[in-house]
Parts: sequence; structure tokens; C-alpha cells
Amino acid sequence: MSLGEFDLIRHFFDRPELRSSRPDVLGIGDDCALLSVPEGMQLAQSLDTLVSGVHFPEHCDPFLLGYRALATNISDIAAMGAEPHSFTLGLTLPESDTDWLQAFSDGLVALAQPSGLALIGGDTTRGPLTISIQVQGLVPSGQALRRNGAKEGDLIYVSGSLGDAAGALPAVLEGLYPQNCEDASVQYLLQRYYQPSPRVKLGQWLAANGATSALDISDGLLGDLGHTLKASQVGAELNLEQLPLSPQLLNVAGKQKAQGYALSGGDDYELCFTWPAHKTLELPEEIRAECSVTCIGRITDAEGICDRATGQPLSAAAYRHF
Amino acid sequence: MSLGEFDLIRHFFDRPELRSSRPDVLGIGDDCALLSVPEGMQLAQSLDTLVSGVHFPEHCDPFLLGYRALATNISDIAAMGAEPHSFTLGLTLPESDTDWLQAFSDGLVALAQPSGLALIGGDTTRGPLTISIQVQGLVPSGQALRRNGAKEGDLIYVSGSLGDAAGALPAVLEGLYPQNCEDASVQYLLQRYYQPSPRVKLGQWLAANGATSALDISDGLLGDLGHTLKASQVGAELNLEQLPLSPQLLNVAGKQKAQGYALSGGDDYELCFTWPAHKTLELPEEIRAECSVTCIGRITDAEGICDRATGQPLSAAAYRHF
Repeated sequence: MSLGEFDLIRHFFDRPELRSSRPDVLGIGDDCALLSVPEGMQLAQSLDTLVSGVHFPEHCDPFLLGYRALATNISDIAAMGAEPHSFTLGLTLPESDTDWLQAFSDGLVALAQPSGLALIGGDTTRGPLTISIQVQGLVPSGQALRRNGAKEGDLIYVSGSLGDAAGALPAVLEGLYPQNCEDASVQYLLQRYYQPSPRVKLGQWLAANGATSALDISDGLLGDLGHTLKASQVGAELNLEQLPLSPQLLNVAGKQKAQGYALSGGDDYELCFTWPAHKTLELPEEIRAECSVTCIGRITDAEGICDRATGQPLSAAAYRHF
Repeated sequence: MSLGEFDLIRHFFDRPELRSSRPDVLGIGDDCALLSVPEGMQLAQSLDTLVSGVHFPEHCDPFLLGYRALATNISDIAAMGAEPHSFTLGLTLPESDTDWLQAFSDGLVALAQPSGLALIGGDTTRGPLTISIQVQGLVPSGQALRRNGAKEGDLIYVSGSLGDAAGALPAVLEGLYPQNCEDASVQYLLQRYYQPSPRVKLGQWLAANGATSALDISDGLLGDLGHTLKASQVGAELNLEQLPLSPQLLNVAGKQKAQGYALSGGDDYELCFTWPAHKTLELPEEIRAECSVTCIGRITDAEGICDRATGQPLSAAAYRHF
């Protein structure tokens, strides 16, 4: 890109709303960003790439795209129990369209500001629309929520409701957005798809209060829970009747499809965590006001995931036709 | 990508040669990587994106591509005076070709291992070939080489020789590689283009011994030095006769073109730094064995860059036709 374009892009990303208020952070403008990590803390980092036509529809609303790209990354920070710190952005664009850049940047700001995330560096290049974001957060040393800590007998919980983003997919593919959708239930599902709520406070609380494992559900409950089980060398049984389904999803998809979406649909960015059975899980009011948590099963010493009611194995593949 | 492909890719990137030997680093396999930063140190981070057909030729040799993608990023760490620590990789690929992945991964290993860089996380996605790498390094707090410290009277130095990568471009566009090029001079230039040498030890020494500014030359000397001058609010005069030109570049391009390449050609990844005139610059033998440094001018209180011999302004645009 020419220097003029670089200046243009700097205008959209070196915005006061995206600058760090931390005195020990050097942001955009030198060869590198600089930051320090307080003693007793670790830096948690996650990088995700979103490709146009693969991870989001071509010609996607740029505000929602900026918001969603950041949200899906913050969700990984939440899943480790870390506090959001900063992010870097690798943006590849076919052309420098100022309206598009303004809306994309506004979408980043809309989530970065309330999350306390500063944009501290990155790169803008010419090419097919691709967004790589690395988000980083701070977590007390040794307290991060790993995937390998689930123990037999632990209860399995999920936050919020599951399957909403999968339930939105038909509307997403039709090109509907929350702001131009008339059906209130579909509008809600679209909102869940485009503006997922990373469970940051919940993750931090779980890390500080003894959850044994956590991850975020990006590829579907069965597949993602499978990662925890593999890392922890345990199995799970699920109570399908307990899966938290939103009334809007039940309205749009009916119970059977909704269960399928909840088990195998991706993009929900809720947390799935395990909790020792002998401890009461009492979330503070501040967190309960943001999202519910629901016990959906327990960790076993068997292999794989089974349906508690029937004892039959549950596989993501079996639900993928929903 | 399907799970099978994920496993395949993990095989190429979660290699023992790319794992961190630091006990305080959690690498690939959880929602986030985790690392700590020792007290009194800062983490320097730089993210760069390379797009096929824009930053490297389509169908580029994957070994050289992996090597070069990492080298250009390490160069930013060198320019801050930091010691390489770790990197994350966002790789977008049209298909999972195992031969391609093996060679690309080998190219990363070939540079990461001697540099002490571990691959601690990332994301692989399906789409047009794009490589985003974030490299991070450690630097003693307050010691990082910024762009804003150049002072009137400081001497301007560059490392190695300039213009080689620009001199290689015609051969690059022809599809030649160092290994299939018969002309020894062109082969050397191709080597310089595809396997630049990040000046890591030089950068660390300069940071510890009082250089006043530094950056790496990725877009051409005049343009990049311009960033230092702007950040430091100073000007520069250059002695064009002092520009370090390799005998190979002089062979291939002749002196006039070679000077043009040195002034405005990108991709050299040499350091350009400023040094107080009253201090002797005595590099230790260990660093001199890796690369020379050459004084090419000095910082002035004027605006912009001028030719010391003629007093005329030097602009990158005037040389861009070379």
C-alpha cells in the first residue's frame, strides 16, 4: 500500500479509544509494541484468523465483523480466566475503503473499550479479506484454567445458552442482520451469532475459585468438550434434557433441532467448565446478572461422551446434519 | 478444516524443534499460550502479514517462504534490541498439502532453532495463502531502541550492505531461487532476498551500549530513515559514496542502479541506527564477524534528507524507477 493509505489506516486504528491507558505499554508507531507483565502474573495469548467466505459471509457488515472478530478472540482469554490486556491486528484488505474501515474500526472499539483492550500493533496489507487478531490477557501465575484438569466426578457446566449461533446460520446465509430482521426470535439468534458475549468475568471468577478446567465452545459442545476429555484423560455423561436452550431457538428450530444445534453447532463462544462435585458453585450476583450457568452432566472414568439417559455414545458427527 | 487436517497441521507445527525450552512457557494445545516476563524486562511484539502474490511470488518455494516470513519478523525484534523469545503463526492455506507443509515447517525450524524462538500458538485456516506471524522478544525495561531518540549531530549507520534484495527482484520475478541459479552474483542476491539475516546480536548490543535510535530497513533506506527523522523531529544528510554496496550487486546492476536500490529498495532487513558522535563505536569481534556497520551520514536540525555532496534533497520517489 502507498504511504497515503498507511496514513489512512493509521487514522482508523491509532484511535484514542483504542490506546492503552497503562503507563508501561508502548503501542502503535515503532518497530515493536512494548509491554511489561507484573510479577506473579502470566500473559495469556491467543491468535485467530478469520477468512472472508469461510468464517463470515462475503460482504459482511463491517461493524459486526470487527465486533465479532474481536469477540471470538477475547473468548479464548475468558476461557483461560485471564483479564483482557491488549491485542494486535493483521488486516488484509482488497482495497482501502474508508467507509468500510470506519465501520470495522467502530466495531472493534464497541467491544474493546468496555473490555479494557488496547490495540497495540499490527499490520495492514493488500489482498483477500482476512483478519488475524492476537488477544492477550493477564492471569495470576498458575491460576489459568487449563483443559487438562477435569477429574472423575466433576460436574460439567456451560454458560448462557447453546445452539443459538448455529440456529442463526440460515438467516446469516440469507444476508440478514439483527438490524434488518423483523422476526424477533431470528433477530435474537443473529445477535448471538454476530455479537457473542465473551464470558470474561465468569472465567476470571472460575480461575480464582477452583474450577478444574475450562474452554470456550467455538466448534460445538461435543467436539470442544472432547478436547477437555482428551487432555484430562477422562470421559463424560451428559443429561440432554438439561442443555440450556433459549426460548428464541426453540421458537425457530423446535426442540429436536435445537438440541442438535446445542450439541454440535459452533460459534456460541460460551464457556464449558468442570467443577468439583463436593464444592458449592455460588456465583456472585455481578456475574449471574451477565449470564447463567447450567450443570449438564459429569465427568466419568469411561472414554468418550455418552447420553446419561440411554447410555449411548454421543458423537458430534451424528448431529452434524442439523 | 476437518479434524484430520487439524491433526496433520499440528504434526507440522507442534514439532519438538519448535517447542520452548523455557519452563515458564505453555505452548500449543490450550485456549491460550502462557508466558511470563521476568521482572525488569519488557516484552517486544511485532506482527507482520505476508500475502501470496503481494509480498512473495505465488508458488513460492515453501522452505524459503517459511524462512523469510520468520526472518522479516525477527528483524523487528532486532531493531528494538530485544532477544527473540517466541512466535505465533496464523496460516491461511488453500489446501493442506503435506509436502508443502513439511517444507514450510522446515523453513521455520531452520531459522527458529538458531534464534531460540519457540512456536507457542496460532491458527490454521482454509483460504488464500496468507501468513501472519507475531514474534516477541525480551528487552531490559527502558532499553529498547526507539525511533524517537536521534539527536542533531548523531552519526547514521547501517548494517551489512544495502540494495541486494531489490537487485534480486528481477530474478525473483523470473522464478529463480538460490538453488537453481547459475550466476554466482545473482545467486547471492537471491539468497539475500529469500534468507535475510536479522541483526539480532547487533541490535541487542546497540541497545545495551547507547545507540540513540534504530529501525530495520524493510521499505527502503530513505523511506525508513524518514520514519526515524519524523519521530525524532530532526533531519539527515547522507554521503552517497559511503552507501555499502555488495560487489555482487555492483556486478549485476552497475553503480548508479545499485545506489538507487540502496536508497529506495526494500526487503534488505538491515538495521539503520544513530550513534552519538562523541562516542567511539567499537563492536565486539563476535558481532563484527556477523556483519559490518558503515557510517553513511549524520543527523541535522534541518527537515528531510539531503545529499551531503550537493545539498540537494533526496526523496525515495525520485529513485523508485530503479
